Amino acid sequence: MNSKTSHCKIVDCTIRDGGLVNNWDFSVEFVQHLYNCLNDAGVEYMEIGYKNSPKLLKGADSAGPWRFLDDEFLRKVIPQKLNTKLSALVDIGRVDENDILPREQSMLDLIRVACYIQDVDKALELVQLFHDRGYETTLNIMALSNVMEHQLLEAFEQINNSVVDVVYIVDSYGSLKPNDFSHLVDKFRTHLPNKRLGVHTHNNMQLAFANTLIAAEKGVELLDASVYGMGRAAGNCTTELLVANLKNPKYKLRPVLDMIETYMIPLREKEEWGYIIPYMITGMLDEHPRSAMALRDTPDKDKSVDFYDKLTTPEVSHSK
Amino acid sequence: MNSKTSHCKIVDCTIRDGGLVNNWDFSVEFVQHLYNCLNDAGVEYMEIGYKNSPKLLKGADSAGPWRFLDDEFLRKVIPQKLNTKLSALVDIGRVDENDILPREQSMLDLIRVACYIQDVDKALELVQLFHDRGYETTLNIMALSNVMEHQLLEAFEQINNSVVDVVYIVDSYGSLKPNDFSHLVDKFRTHLPNKRLGVHTHNNMQLAFANTLIAAEKGVELLDASVYGMGRAAGNCTTELLVANLKNPKYKLRPVLDMIETYMIPLREKEEWGYIIPYMITGMLDEHPRSAMALRDTPDKDKSVDFYDKLTTPEVSHSK
Repeated sequence: MNSKTSHCKIVDCTIRDGGLVNNWDFSVEFVQHLYNCLNDAGVEYMEIGYKNSPKLLKGADSAGPWRFLDDEFLRKVIPQKLNTKLSALVDIGRVDENDILPREQSMLDLIRVACYIQDVDKALELVQLFHDRGYETTLNIMALSNVMEHQLLEAFEQINNSVVDVVYIVDSYGSLKPNDFSHLVDKFRTHLPNKRLGVHTHNNMQLAFANTLIAAEKGVELLDASVYGMGRAAGNCTTELLVANLKNPKYKLRPVLDMIETYMIPLREKEEWGYIIPYMITGMLDEHPRSAMALRDTPDKDKSVDFYDKLTTPEVSHSK
Repeated sequence: MNSKTSHCKIVDCTIRDGGLVNNWDFSVEFVQHLYNCLNDAGVEYMEIGYKNSPKLLKGADSAGPWRFLDDEFLRKVIPQKLNTKLSALVDIGRVDENDILPREQSMLDLIRVACYIQDVDKALELVQLFHDRGYETTLNIMALSNVMEHQLLEAFEQINNSVVDVVYIVDSYGSLKPNDFSHLVDKFRTHLPNKRLGVHTHNNMQLAFANTLIAAEKGVELLDASVYGMGRAAGNCTTELLVANLKNPKYKLRPVLDMIETYMIPLREKEEWGYIIPYMITGMLDEHPRSAMALRDTPDKDKSVDFYDKLTTPEVSHSK
């Protein structure tokens, strides 16, 4: 494996996916320190937030600034861009075209569009827009564990006719085992011969790093991760494990350890993510972690037997 | 993968390996509840402790009774054996032959001998003793990531000439990646065509479950695990993930969740194991976690940058 991962690039999603944990309540100092650490570590991309429009989202007022990135603000946060490029994620239906500067006037290099399989067409329209404005683009297809074969084949056709640079396999529920993941990568590889691939994993069953490594070995290029695994519910593949294990002399672990020691350990005392039993249960059942997230907000947060009974008793279990 | 794991058997090591965390300070109620849960869950073996002799070990006085299992005591703990068999681990040089009853008079079904590669001959002598007294036996070769090819080939020859039932691949330092692990399993399979195989993993790099699954797929039969991953340092593959994911209708997750909810969550508040950065560092460096365990006992326990510097600066790093 080792010799076969030098083609990989890491996309650190600590701020964007981690923001789902703390409502994007990261200080400017936190984000600046992270940017410098990732740059020193050799990490190629930092996803610094969402580029959705606050006008198109409910409950936007309470969120931190990384929820709705503004170019002017970003220029103050990162007065000097270093080697690490900046990325933002958008959701379909939540982008205001007028917010998107041409790339040469923007701090962002990469814009990624997340969608479910049935919205691939809409997502590819957005991709075209970002592409025309000069950005690198990715299409991140979520919840692939719940997609039927014919839907996937139809999507592949649309993708092959699009300008998107990279197509992502997203294990939204953390439910895919190494074999499943390996099969998906092979399928994407076969059906999208001219597209580069990316993966985004979740750690519900402690498989995020293993699945990411397996994808890397199979030629997948963009690997999503977050420092100390910070991300919604069970969190993500960790940046430190990728930096420590991908074979590329440019990667340095020490700056990532600095970020963990200085900011992530204290943050983890206040906020929760990682391998926690209710998230393991939604992962094994291949469903969205929202029921487990709701449970973790109650005094019954560790009552996993009742939780398991509710999700697995047909007459009372909710639909996905 | 799924259809290929029905040959597997789980060996729960919560008491034995978990005892390395809390000096075997488990109450009788804890162990009884665990036994009943594992039996209800369909787990085949429970490793209930060590069968070393207290006369042959320093500092034995402070340890709980699971450190030096006594058959008379065991009969009180488990007055009625159910389907789950009982196992004990021994280390070479620490066994008093007089402690070992013939199997028909003992509560134990399986005795496992742990050793480093250079002591395989001594370990196989012990295996012969246990075999002659009627026990199932395994040979657990530790620290395989640090073993040279010619040592391994020599050991294979001795093992092929022995009566041992099962030979274990032990990733003592949690340093093996899926590819490494897969290669080792293939090598053992090729060179030990008439022996059954087992694996014991550690979770320093969040790979314990993934590596165990990969081994299971390749025909490995005995899979070590512990509830909630409790085990020294980064801990083990978790029993709940195996029970939830191995394809065998006999396995039931609910009793394992009961054990976690009732005993393991409160225990984890007092005792520490799991994915913790200093253990990740010793894992990636392929060395024993003792330096990280020492660090975790100091006020500097989260100062992983200094720790990393010490282990990676040639002039100051200690030998393994």
